[in-house]
Amino acid sequence: MAVGAAISDPPLPVAGISLAAVAAEIRYRDRLDLGLLCARGPCTLAATFTQNRFAAAPVRRCRELLIDAAPGDWALLVNAGNANAATGPSGASAALQTCRIAAAALGLPPERVLPFSTGVIGEALPVEPFAEHLGPLSAGLGEHGWEDFSRCILTTDTRPKVASRRLEFGAGAVTVTAVAKGAAMMQPDMATMLAFAGTDARIEQRLLLRLHREAVAGSFNRISIDGDTSTNDAAVLIATGAGGVEIAEGSPEHSALAGALGEVYAQLAREMVRDAEGAEHCVTLIVQGGRDAAQCALVGYAVANSPLFKTAVFAADPNWGRLAMAIGRSGADFDPDQVRIDFEDVPVMLGGVVAPDYSEAAATAVMARPEYTLRIDLGCGAAAERFWFSDLSHDYIRINADYRT
Amino acid sequence: MAVGAAISDPPLPVAGISLAAVAAEIRYRDRLDLGLLCARGPCTLAATFTQNRFAAAPVRRCRELLIDAAPGDWALLVNAGNANAATGPSGASAALQTCRIAAAALGLPPERVLPFSTGVIGEALPVEPFAEHLGPLSAGLGEHGWEDFSRCILTTDTRPKVASRRLEFGAGAVTVTAVAKGAAMMQPDMATMLAFAGTDARIEQRLLLRLHREAVAGSFNRISIDGDTSTNDAAVLIATGAGGVEIAEGSPEHSALAGALGEVYAQLAREMVRDAEGAEHCVTLIVQGGRDAAQCALVGYAVANSPLFKTAVFAADPNWGRLAMAIGRSGADFDPDQVRIDFEDVPVMLGGVVAPDYSEAAATAVMARPEYTLRIDLGCGAAAERFWFSDLSHDYIRINADYRT
Repeated sequence: MAVGAAISDPPLPVAGISLAAVAAEIRYRDRLDLGLLCARGPCTLAATFTQNRFAAAPVRRCRELLIDAAPGDWALLVNAGNANAATGPSGASAALQTCRIAAAALGLPPERVLPFSTGVIGEALPVEPFAEHLGPLSAGLGEHGWEDFSRCILTTDTRPKVASRRLEFGAGAVTVTAVAKGAAMMQPDMATMLAFAGTDARIEQRLLLRLHREAVAGSFNRISIDGDTSTNDAAVLIATGAGGVEIAEGSPEHSALAGALGEVYAQLAREMVRDAEGAEHCVTLIVQGGRDAAQCALVGYAVANSPLFKTAVFAADPNWGRLAMAIGRSGADFDPDQVRIDFEDVPVMLGGVVAPDYSEAAATAVMARPEYTLRIDLGCGAAAERFWFSDLSHDYIRINADYRT
Repeated sequence: MAVGAAISDPPLPVAGISLAAVAAEIRYRDRLDLGLLCARGPCTLAATFTQNRFAAAPVRRCRELLIDAAPGDWALLVNAGNANAATGPSGASAALQTCRIAAAALGLPPERVLPFSTGVIGEALPVEPFAEHLGPLSAGLGEHGWEDFSRCILTTDTRPKVASRRLEFGAGAVTVTAVAKGAAMMQPDMATMLAFAGTDARIEQRLLLRLHREAVAGSFNRISIDGDTSTNDAAVLIATGAGGVEIAEGSPEHSALAGALGEVYAQLAREMVRDAEGAEHCVTLIVQGGRDAAQCALVGYAVANSPLFKTAVFAADPNWGRLAMAIGRSGADFDPDQVRIDFEDVPVMLGGVVAPDYSEAAATAVMARPEYTLRIDLGCGAAAERFWFSDLSHDYIRINADYRT
């Protein structure tokens, strides 16, 4: 199951970007599982990848290709069903071959095609489906392909995730559209989050990377399903410049675009948590009163990843002792006697002990909601960070223990 | 449920140490829940405590009292059912009062009584049961009280945990006896591990601390139920010197005692994992071929705490992709192409890819056993560390979500 109704925008086309998807039967049957995104022009590109040492072959190839890459045409080649991870030299070779096939179909040099895979770890990626489908795929590219593309990257997600914003400036309009797939390794061998974003603004490479990293820091890097990190995580932002608006560093346009990008990424990140299989609750966690972002992050992740507290969230049990335990074990340095905790508008802990007017019934009522906000104030500074996390449910165990593909 | 049959030794008395336990009804009914351990003579004492910032009132008091404490008489006062954690100044006052009551009953200065509590977080510790029972408790002290004492400290453990060893030297015999309670915060609000050990050897304070810390490092600090750390964890070792054997640093006796202490602690640590409620498997994890102990520990804990891999252990599913994922996300620096993984005698991964003769049936057969050994070789050095962890089961969720006291 998933939390609430899907939150997904109709994707706005992005000038300079065309997309297509096909059912290539790489692993799944009768669904889109192979996609191509093509960005033409003096495009800049920013990307972040998993920190997992067992990074998959496509991640390793992307990293190599993106060292010192010049602006220009880019193609992103994405498959679901097979992660091409822990596949050794033959996996690297398969990633290279699929990119060469795509490059030939598009008339691009192979080093302008970036590969992405998600799915089963440790199985050889078959190259034949790519050879068979890249022709029709490249012929089918169109600016309205975002919807299909958002579907072809899914694994165990129950719904596609699309976010789109349009900004109007004096110099013209800027569009940002992004798609993503789920953040939990929810099913045996599945490997996890992918996000692809495009904008038609013209943005210099260094500034684009900064915009991308800042937006990732407050969104995809602020969610937790189970604390595990896949071998294939990747998030990519392309700026085509085809819309005609140039974003100068420090300009009002820069600030507005940073805000829109942050919103788009945060919407997708939250959707990943809401659509985590097994999830019955999506909790927004604000850690405030921190010395700095790093301290807030230590506390935020300790809470978001605590199996004991996540199980309490599942049970709608306002077990604040477990919450205090998780905060206390985070490794963050703070004075426990200054800590304040609120569940929405219900004060739970004040000055390190239970709040004087604490109502367990009121706290239980908050936790019974599918979505709510917890606030932890560390009482030692002005920094604040926001996180989203899901609960640890019977379904999480059932899906991960009982289900085998 | 628990894994396998209980492993518990008949406790050997330790000269200089007497113990007793009573049913004081602090929270539980009709069971031992209050204990006293009294060590008389020029006793040295070593202790380690939780690193949780929300350390409970008794932990805070112990820390204060143990700064620069001289050898001499010691009493340990332990209750189950109430953790006296997140209780603020009134909790500190309750800890102090209970120690004063015990000190008066024993004719000791209050600063020679160390308090320990385990149980519900955030509730006031009632002082009355201590006032009522300390007289009979001190009157009942005896050297055969280890068995009762091992029972009075339990919370959701299904069985007591006692380990005992006797060493014969030319100068005489040395006995080590220790008791412990469970390491999982397995039930709402429960706070966790306690261990109390005594020996009749005479050991200088600094050497005792070294012996204790080294034994803790390879035992209580090498287990994981759920990765959460309680507010009340404590492990204490007392050396009474009453047996007449003196342990000199660097002597054969030192080495033999270090070995015995390591065995005693490791036996108790493993029993905690085997008795973790909800546990159906107890896995011994060897991380070898590491650069140093710290690198092995990063990998060991990443695996032992991975919800995805722990769920695979529960399901007896040889999902080595998840294992690789957990190793890779540990933060340890290594070459994935050098990694080797074995499940008992079944090679699973070699050189970073699936082993050429890998048999899923054989790996599944290993994982179907209640207890087995996983071996990860990082291929970058000679360091090795051993860990024990339990699985993530339906019962873990049920116990922590559905059960409320």
